[in-house]
Amino acid sequence: MLDGKWFTEIFEESGSAFSLQITDKLYEEQTPYQKIEIFDTTHFGKLMSIDGCVMLSSRDNFIYHEMMSHPALLSCATPEEVLIIGGGDCGTLKEVLKHKAVTHAVQVDIDEGVTRASENYFPELCTSNNDPRAELHFDDGIAWVKNAPAESIDVIIVDSTDPVGPAEGLFTLDFFSDCYRVLRPGGIVIQQSGSPLVCPNEIIDMHKVIRDAGFDSQQTYQFPQCVYPSGWWSATAGGKGIDLSNAVNKVPATLDFDTLFYSIAGHHGAMAIPPFLQALLEDSRKH
Amino acid sequence: MLDGKWFTEIFEESGSAFSLQITDKLYEEQTPYQKIEIFDTTHFGKLMSIDGCVMLSSRDNFIYHEMMSHPALLSCATPEEVLIIGGGDCGTLKEVLKHKAVTHAVQVDIDEGVTRASENYFPELCTSNNDPRAELHFDDGIAWVKNAPAESIDVIIVDSTDPVGPAEGLFTLDFFSDCYRVLRPGGIVIQQSGSPLVCPNEIIDMHKVIRDAGFDSQQTYQFPQCVYPSGWWSATAGGKGIDLSNAVNKVPATLDFDTLFYSIAGHHGAMAIPPFLQALLEDSRKH
Repeated sequence: MLDGKWFTEIFEESGSAFSLQITDKLYEEQTPYQKIEIFDTTHFGKLMSIDGCVMLSSRDNFIYHEMMSHPALLSCATPEEVLIIGGGDCGTLKEVLKHKAVTHAVQVDIDEGVTRASENYFPELCTSNNDPRAELHFDDGIAWVKNAPAESIDVIIVDSTDPVGPAEGLFTLDFFSDCYRVLRPGGIVIQQSGSPLVCPNEIIDMHKVIRDAGFDSQQTYQFPQCVYPSGWWSATAGGKGIDLSNAVNKVPATLDFDTLFYSIAGHHGAMAIPPFLQALLEDSRKH
Repeated sequence: MLDGKWFTEIFEESGSAFSLQITDKLYEEQTPYQKIEIFDTTHFGKLMSIDGCVMLSSRDNFIYHEMMSHPALLSCATPEEVLIIGGGDCGTLKEVLKHKAVTHAVQVDIDEGVTRASENYFPELCTSNNDPRAELHFDDGIAWVKNAPAESIDVIIVDSTDPVGPAEGLFTLDFFSDCYRVLRPGGIVIQQSGSPLVCPNEIIDMHKVIRDAGFDSQQTYQFPQCVYPSGWWSATAGGKGIDLSNAVNKVPATLDFDTLFYSIAGHHGAMAIPPFLQALLEDSRKH
């Protein structure tokens, strides 16, 4: 069936698979944490995989990076101090630094190999790495948040792999409790939360952990993401002393930077949780 | 790579492929028009393919069928007379008949085989086939519209396969000009228009053909659709004497029927065309 060269990722829990036609393997590295591979594809530009799972492609990463950044930053009244946990490809950092209000953006990815590979193969994502507001650390994000001073950060973006392997601790109550502590009032944490279609339980679990960590509001944003399971993805945010469902109404009508996917109308749209998911979320709150 | 039994559809024009794990082939029929196959899958329920292309799965067809029906019907002030071209699986018809305003819904699919297969393998989509307002014909939809009286229909839903093979004529200026003629003032035509990510030209072409056919407004609605190329799909509508960009604001705040994906907020969200696509559409209008 798949003649020729293909990269295929199988999603066991949904009995589905996604494949991209590749022309070459450009790079392979086993770091202390994971196996990074870079491929050239016929139609999606470069492809980065980690431990066999698609991380990003040149063609569609703009959607993910914009949606991990702009809804949270624009919902925060004063997004000055931003912490990115993971995000080693630097695409989220680039979007964060489009916001003039940001005075300091710290990125903490455990694996320097991801950033070095991205600099080489996704240089368009790394154009803001030398911004004087940016600070790149290669360190354990969980420990970083644990050791950060209370009420010192405005927005935490958790741009991690899925909740297995090194990223597992980024989905726990302990971690989100630490996030709550280090966020200033009006602060926001956001984390990718999987496919509404094939793993709605990840979204439900994230709402619970965010609620249990003390956050005052939870909000899921959904968006298309071709290379991730089901092509439909989500991020879920927690607000400290802020109602995220209403925060978008305070966003200015026009942006002072360019985007390819994000728009104010799309921000509202991403918050339109389908009735089937809304019912699952409401049901989970009863238990 | 894909060990065991998989159904794989390759999308040549985007160098990508989508696969579902199957347990059984349940049915196969070569009709005068196309080859219909039904499979059982491990996680997506039943799967229908036509000429090797995924048509629908039990698990995610609700999104497509709701988005092909409700935005158009709710944007129309008096959706009484509805014509469905294609739609042989009857899922769109079922959604259309949820609207109490509909007095008559005619479905014209060229291939009776699709409807018979759906009755057997997707009976949940066929529960409204005996509604007294429903009329099923197995006939050429292009000729049907050509022969229909002027200003006799409120909403035309073109629920067809992609613009190759028997459905090719459903994407032409001739066809949309006939749709314009048979629609009443305030009427709407809507047609599936492909993936915003991997085939934005289909959307651009459809805007052009709808504009050239005389329609006063064009509106694309985008939505996730796991089993179609890129997992992100769209439908594009034309309004006759009606501004579709504004019509959603006249929709009542609550629906008097149940949906799984569609909501009024989601209707607005589906209309939030990403900046990259907006730029392509605006550029195409200049030429």
